[in-house]
Amino acid sequence: MVITFGEMMMRLSPPDFQRFEQANTLEIIFGGCESNVAVALANWEMPASHVTRFPSNPLGKAAKQFLDKNGVHTSFIQLQGERLGLYFLENGVAMRAGRIVYDRYHSAFAEIEVGAFDWEQIFESAKWFHWSGITPALSENCAKECLRALEVAKQKNVFVSADIYYRSNLWKYGKKPQEVMPELVQYCDLVLANEQNLEEIFGIKMEKTANPFVSSASKMIEKYPKIKKVVDTERISISASHNQIKAKMFNGKDFLETEYQEINPIVDRIGGGDAFMAGLIYGLLSYQDDQKALDFGICASALKHTIEGDTNLATVAEIENLMRGDASGRLKR
Amino acid sequence: MVITFGEMMMRLSPPDFQRFEQANTLEIIFGGCESNVAVALANWEMPASHVTRFPSNPLGKAAKQFLDKNGVHTSFIQLQGERLGLYFLENGVAMRAGRIVYDRYHSAFAEIEVGAFDWEQIFESAKWFHWSGITPALSENCAKECLRALEVAKQKNVFVSADIYYRSNLWKYGKKPQEVMPELVQYCDLVLANEQNLEEIFGIKMEKTANPFVSSASKMIEKYPKIKKVVDTERISISASHNQIKAKMFNGKDFLETEYQEINPIVDRIGGGDAFMAGLIYGLLSYQDDQKALDFGICASALKHTIEGDTNLATVAEIENLMRGDASGRLKR
Amino acid sequence: MVITFGEMMMRLSPPDFQRFEQANTLEIIFGGCESNVAVALANWEMPASHVTRFPSNPLGKAAKQFLDKNGVHTSFIQLQGERLGLYFLENGVAMRAGRIVYDRYHSAFAEIEVGAFDWEQIFESAKWFHWSGITPALSENCAKECLRALEVAKQKNVFVSADIYYRSNLWKYGKKPQEVMPELVQYCDLVLANEQNLEEIFGIKMEKTANPFVSSASKMIEKYPKIKKVVDTERISISASHNQIKAKMFNGKDFLETEYQEINPIVDRIGGGDAFMAGLIYGLLSYQDDQKALDFGICASALKHTIEGDTNLATVAEIENLMRGDASGRLKR
Amino acid sequence: MVITFGEMMMRLSPPDFQRFEQANTLEIIFGGCESNVAVALANWEMPASHVTRFPSNPLGKAAKQFLDKNGVHTSFIQLQGERLGLYFLENGVAMRAGRIVYDRYHSAFAEIEVGAFDWEQIFESAKWFHWSGITPALSENCAKECLRALEVAKQKNVFVSADIYYRSNLWKYGKKPQEVMPELVQYCDLVLANEQNLEEIFGIKMEKTANPFVSSASKMIEKYPKIKKVVDTERISISASHNQIKAKMFNGKDFLETEYQEINPIVDRIGGGDAFMAGLIYGLLSYQDDQKALDFGICASALKHTIEGDTNLATVAEIENLMRGDASGRLKR
Amino acid sequence: MVITFGEMMMRLSPPDFQRFEQANTLEIIFGGCESNVAVALANWEMPASHVTRFPSNPLGKAAKQFLDKNGVHTSFIQLQGERLGLYFLENGVAMRAGRIVYDRYHSAFAEIEVGAFDWEQIFESAKWFHWSGITPALSENCAKECLRALEVAKQKNVFVSADIYYRSNLWKYGKKPQEVMPELVQYCDLVLANEQNLEEIFGIKMEKTANPFVSSASKMIEKYPKIKKVVDTERISISASHNQIKAKMFNGKDFLETEYQEINPIVDRIGGGDAFMAGLIYGLLSYQDDQKALDFGICASALKHTIEGDTNLATVAEIENLMRGDASGRLKR
Amino acid sequence: MVITFGEMMMRLSPPDFQRFEQANTLEIIFGGCESNVAVALANWEMPASHVTRFPSNPLGKAAKQFLDKNGVHTSFIQLQGERLGLYFLENGVAMRAGRIVYDRYHSAFAEIEVGAFDWEQIFESAKWFHWSGITPALSENCAKECLRALEVAKQKNVFVSADIYYRSNLWKYGKKPQEVMPELVQYCDLVLANEQNLEEIFGIKMEKTANPFVSSASKMIEKYPKIKKVVDTERISISASHNQIKAKMFNGKDFLETEYQEINPIVDRIGGGDAFMAGLIYGLLSYQDDQKALDFGICASALKHTIEGDTNLATVAEIENLMRGDASGRLKR
Repeated sequence: MVITFGEMMMRLSPPDFQRFEQANTLEIIFGGCESNVAVALANWEMPASHVTRFPSNPLGKAAKQFLDKNGVHTSFIQLQGERLGLYFLENGVAMRAGRIVYDRYHSAFAEIEVGAFDWEQIFESAKWFHWSGITPALSENCAKECLRALEVAKQKNVFVSADIYYRSNLWKYGKKPQEVMPELVQYCDLVLANEQNLEEIFGIKMEKTANPFVSSASKMIEKYPKIKKVVDTERISISASHNQIKAKMFNGKDFLETEYQEINPIVDRIGGGDAFMAGLIYGLLSYQDDQKALDFGICASALKHTIEGDTNLATVAEIENLMRGDASGRLKR
Repeated sequence: MVITFGEMMMRLSPPDFQRFEQANTLEIIFGGCESNVAVALANWEMPASHVTRFPSNPLGKAAKQFLDKNGVHTSFIQLQGERLGLYFLENGVAMRAGRIVYDRYHSAFAEIEVGAFDWEQIFESAKWFHWSGITPALSENCAKECLRALEVAKQKNVFVSADIYYRSNLWKYGKKPQEVMPELVQYCDLVLANEQNLEEIFGIKMEKTANPFVSSASKMIEKYPKIKKVVDTERISISASHNQIKAKMFNGKDFLETEYQEINPIVDRIGGGDAFMAGLIYGLLSYQDDQKALDFGICASALKHTIEGDTNLATVAEIENLMRGDASGRLKR
Repeated sequence: MVITFGEMMMRLSPPDFQRFEQANTLEIIFGGCESNVAVALANWEMPASHVTRFPSNPLGKAAKQFLDKNGVHTSFIQLQGERLGLYFLENGVAMRAGRIVYDRYHSAFAEIEVGAFDWEQIFESAKWFHWSGITPALSENCAKECLRALEVAKQKNVFVSADIYYRSNLWKYGKKPQEVMPELVQYCDLVLANEQNLEEIFGIKMEKTANPFVSSASKMIEKYPKIKKVVDTERISISASHNQIKAKMFNGKDFLETEYQEINPIVDRIGGGDAFMAGLIYGLLSYQDDQKALDFGICASALKHTIEGDTNLATVAEIENLMRGDASGRLKR
Repeated sequence: MVITFGEMMMRLSPPDFQRFEQANTLEIIFGGCESNVAVALANWEMPASHVTRFPSNPLGKAAKQFLDKNGVHTSFIQLQGERLGLYFLENGVAMRAGRIVYDRYHSAFAEIEVGAFDWEQIFESAKWFHWSGITPALSENCAKECLRALEVAKQKNVFVSADIYYRSNLWKYGKKPQEVMPELVQYCDLVLANEQNLEEIFGIKMEKTANPFVSSASKMIEKYPKIKKVVDTERISISASHNQIKAKMFNGKDFLETEYQEINPIVDRIGGGDAFMAGLIYGLLSYQDDQKALDFGICASALKHTIEGDTNLATVAEIENLMRGDASGRLKR
Repeated sequence: MVITFGEMMMRLSPPDFQRFEQANTLEIIFGGCESNVAVALANWEMPASHVTRFPSNPLGKAAKQFLDKNGVHTSFIQLQGERLGLYFLENGVAMRAGRIVYDRYHSAFAEIEVGAFDWEQIFESAKWFHWSGITPALSENCAKECLRALEVAKQKNVFVSADIYYRSNLWKYGKKPQEVMPELVQYCDLVLANEQNLEEIFGIKMEKTANPFVSSASKMIEKYPKIKKVVDTERISISASHNQIKAKMFNGKDFLETEYQEINPIVDRIGGGDAFMAGLIYGLLSYQDDQKALDFGICASALKHTIEGDTNLATVAEIENLMRGDASGRLKR
Repeated sequence: MVITFGEMMMRLSPPDFQRFEQANTLEIIFGGCESNVAVALANWEMPASHVTRFPSNPLGKAAKQFLDKNGVHTSFIQLQGERLGLYFLENGVAMRAGRIVYDRYHSAFAEIEVGAFDWEQIFESAKWFHWSGITPALSENCAKECLRALEVAKQKNVFVSADIYYRSNLWKYGKKPQEVMPELVQYCDLVLANEQNLEEIFGIKMEKTANPFVSSASKMIEKYPKIKKVVDTERISISASHNQIKAKMFNGKDFLETEYQEINPIVDRIGGGDAFMAGLIYGLLSYQDDQKALDFGICASALKHTIEGDTNLATVAEIENLMRGDASGRLKR
């Protein structure tokens, strides 16, 4: 069982390429950095359980049903509290960028109390725990609950991955990521981060080497010796409709990278990074081969861009087909 | 110019008769108890200006554009603050009741500072000011700003109407309506309230007379001598799709009431009371005749029930046609 | 073959019960007083051919395809001229009336030249010709072409029915119906008209008898001896959503009438009269029994009110079921 | 755990009141006589598991996800076979009846082999088993598998209910219900059937007594002594939009019945009977009181008619509110 | 008159780029390999008549109306039998392939009896007959009826074209294409096939020459001397959204080919081959010039990819404009 | 205040890439060459007032509300006359061109009387007046009213820009542009026109120089000495989905031009030229720098192509970001 922990929001988007001011309806989708990972894994028939809190109202019930529908285990989800986190997404196209208006503060999840979840029970049959840097940014209690989870995970030998997601305008409750993240990251086995993140949050100075990612990653592993792998993705944004992405890993020994995947047109760019993370977890657990895992991750991410919503509904067969180099999109009858 | 003051929210509803759990899209409409009055008046070509605050984001801009489109003056609307108040509406039908999930706390309007609005300027060319009991329920600052507005209105001889709207679960910030409303109501010339409201909030004991509304209303007028008229509506709810409504007034001297209007089927029940209030204001200003004003109000309210959204888009001609007793709905070519 | 002659327009309606000002999309349907008759007959597998002109553009092509889809013969339809007649329809509901904005002037049909159609060929295998009072109202040429058609119909012994449809604001080109209609009506075998029409247009004074319809109809038959039957419908409009309709006939000898049909709720009221006319034609041709024909007509009309669009898609089986008194609407599996 | 067994189909309906010929899109909903019971129970937080087979294609996966979303246990559902059963539904309104076109033959479920399901395991923690007369009508194997289930249920003391659903045109594979149903019904504790069913299928002659239902039901109980209760509903169909329904029971001793529930307008009539059955099961298990169970059932059924789709999403609170006589549909804020 | 023979199915697709599991509605379109040819020809005002059978239910009626609307002659279409063939299409985009789930077995067409159609009458005024390899794959009777048609066509000197369409998973009734197709193909004047088809079905060994298509085609013509032309298309699939297509022909003497047409983005890829076939027929009949016919065919096919649905609604003017090299897509006012 | 003068039409488009014949709904948008300029300027918070006439019906009211919503001043708009100008737009894609069917003749605007507008009052606080060559093409009165406006503008020293828009099929009332435009253009300070326009309408012979635009423009300025700048755009149309655009100016002294902007995919091409004009006006008034104004114009135009509708809703920040060379479309959180 893979355990994911974090907020899942209701996403509301104007249809097609409408701007917010043009919209008369909004399309409902649910997504969150960590639950997106759980949904992708469940879709690939790898058991996953998401831990969060939704409000005890019909919107919270709908959020939970989204996970149930997608086969994610929801037995550790709590239905209490006041409001569901929301975000409004306007799609980008060509040279026009997409826009997000967040409305997630004071959500049921952000306002959890410390000790809200019984991590002993949650990790009972777990082999992997995934969290992200968004959760400790939401509230002081979220940061503390994250630490509680990590302590139990360590003690139960659960493998821990973290997406060191960083946007300065997320941290509004008074603490800075530099005060919070280092304590949390020391419990991790794998981190997704780029050199800028490592410098800004963990003080790992970037070096002007041929491969600065490798130098930063190896210093990170030195500093936090539980970390075994540092991974990252690179995105060349030709336009909002046309991107190229690749992935790379430093596993303490080797530097690995994938080919670029060409995505044109992009249907929905949201959740592309989470799809990579899910693919990487799936790949590491299925193949025991870092390169194949990285390839699965980037192909999963590329296909995610062709699917509406935050979550990846591409099949293992489709991803493996793309890994074999077939990007032709030929009709399957 | 009629001035209205209060929050306008984005309303998000599943289409047709879907339950929240079934919805894949939500329809966007904007509404608020007081802005609904302004929109109706503007639609009837009576100048109206709404005073509120929307966040400085695309959703706030869309809210303002809704009022602009409908001809309401928006020069006193401020675009600042964090979030737009929201509410989610599930339509009722037959014996199934509609449901509302409010998500309006911490909105840009609820978090205004005292002194946010320049009431001297706002009331410069005003002849009527309308507010409701929702505003002082939202936050202590809202209550105080309401009082500031009322003081200036009095001093400038602006006629003041209030909708003594009361739902106990609205008052969450610590004060009770009994502590706040009496001070505000003494500035009013006309109040919309039923006997229960008058007893609960103002301590006017209901009497078991033939017409308890008249006894309560006359005691209210005695207690708050600036009040000249007390009005109310009555609703017989045969089902969520079929209602009968009428209106009544005590004007300090006479008791007036309307016939019942039969509404079947109801398209959208939200804003029915606000449509009555708008109609009453329009009627009093246009006809100088309490009975005709009351009739215009109840016919405006009845027609509102046939229109999607919180606001009344029925024309004066349609309302006057209904006042003449023509409920036949015959096609106009 | 039943021949119908007249304009068919594109109808554009806001969805559901939206007002024009609320609409962001318009639903496309095609309809016209006479083509509605042809579509209903074709639906019941009685051969029908509609004669008209559409512009030679994609909208005209779409109009023709609507008739083709519904099985109406279109070989006498001409694709030439400038614009397609349009009308905008806002649905009514409860006490709110529907509204129509016509935009049909200068249409390809209104601007036909006299002699546009080869009536000798058109009536070659015809047994019935149906026209309405709308056509001579559109333009002087339309009135003249109508007369040309009637002359040939008479000479070929084609049975002629007319819907003496009268709205004063239709006649805009300078002539009055009183100048035009009497010459046309003398070629008719059956007319649909009420006493008011007969008085206004043909100068048949209404009498205050027990059955003024019979007295007016019998005087009409006296005055225009080719007329054999005068028919009419009565509509009690409880609201835009709830009507009761019945039909009546004076066949020169007997007065016949139907029961009232109760329609609640109304889905689409447009074309209700045309559905009656089509049903009457079908009934007269199929049953050779005035009462059964009248019953078929009113039941066809009632069922039309439950169907979106101007045209009647109820089946003969459904209509005959209603004629037997079954209005229960029980599911057919 | 309540176990339900039978086919669930994809239902495809034109939107609103469109006829099939008018439709350009079809709305997808899933439903089946027995799975509708499971969904309703799960919605009321009574554990329910549905046993069926869906094809191993994306449509089968979507069907399973519908049950997952609604909280029904799906661990005994098999994904194999060729096609998903379908049905096309055209909504009725006013006097126009709804129409269903079934397309369910050769479905994955209809083509199960005998022995497809491991009933020992399925009934391990079951307390109730519900099946209907549709299943043995689909194929000989379905009938045989039904018998296998019933034998195990009996042996494990699982309470058995059956909906003796009978449409002659369902039985197409060669056997008649009279040959199959008697053997199956002897395993039942509760049957839903009317006097006509009991006569046609089980040869229980209807008697012209004051209450023929009681006489037939008591003879049925005599003949099949495992049966403890016979229940039925009555529907007065004023139109496709307006029905009145009530329920009745003979429990071997007493005749019980409910008040009529008035439903106007009907949003979706499909699954009304299944909602009653689900409500009855919920009521019997929750209240241990036949009258309250019958009341819960009929109120659940009435509310179902206000909800789109085959399944009942009314809450226990809404149903109990209606049981207390509140059909007012007043908005819940 | 061009006669086409084969099944037309209802196609059901999730809107936009939704996966099946995300869909709440399905869009209805009709299509079939052979009827697509007839619709394209009718659209270009070349008379075409499609021969098939639809079930005698509202879905069958809707299918027929689709052909009527598009101007195809439907007088030889039979309305009888049980079910309409269906297929479900999920659109592909970028590197994600589209998916089709067929549900066409046991359809009214597949279950025709031998002798179902009166080919003497059908071919009375025919000059061209088009069929495809799908029909003999559906059932033994379909294969036999195909042979009956071909025998009459030969005897009446109707020109015969065949699309040697081959998917192994279509042939489910026991026969192999190698047993059936050779007998049928000997009646053909023109076949659409690639070298793989010719080898697999007709045993024409591919040769590693500079132009293996020409060698295979010329051996095919040798083996089946009635064949005068072998044609094929080539598709380079850069992604599901971006393809390049060209066409080629061996006419017994010369090898002809077209330029590549670049299609980006693809709106709907289904029916691209049928559009080529229709264009080729149109071109051969209109221009009497193999190269121009081939060019018309490939340009028709390219434009088809920009149109929703299986059928080609591009105009002759649009196709000829593209033949002249104008792919600029400049707005036509 | 910028004053714009001209017709605004209701635009009706099939959704997505449907052809007219496939459409069942039409999407409503409003647009016109000159009002598009006003909407863009108002969106950028530069005061703009549009002068026109709409019919006094609900469609005219909706048109006015569109401008109100977008912040354009509407106090000089008249609600009178018969019909609203319409146009039907079918979107193009890939090599398929978009199509427009105009239906604008006999509109309320085209039928204005000379002297309809009080230009003295309109230009009271104006600094810029923009008109186009469409207006004098609509009717003789429109041409005369245009001249009246220009005379007053000159006398009040209002800067005048004109879009010398020319389509021969627009001029239907008897006059030719060569008879009308020269008199009007002499009042202009800035004209948007290409060399072909200048030759056809004003008799400025094109020269085969290295930069024929500069030679034509400088001769134009010589001939009409009030003109200070001649501007134009160039469009390379790779397909209906992929264009490259740039702008150029001759300001009497220097030739300026912009880089090409690459637009792929195009969402909506209509109004691209008007967006350039609006951007140029905004740039000239804001930057006092011809090159920056030209850059702002072309970037505004490029972004317009990514927005549904005729009008530009891109923000100043987005346009300035693109001016800095960022076409990456990276998501804004």
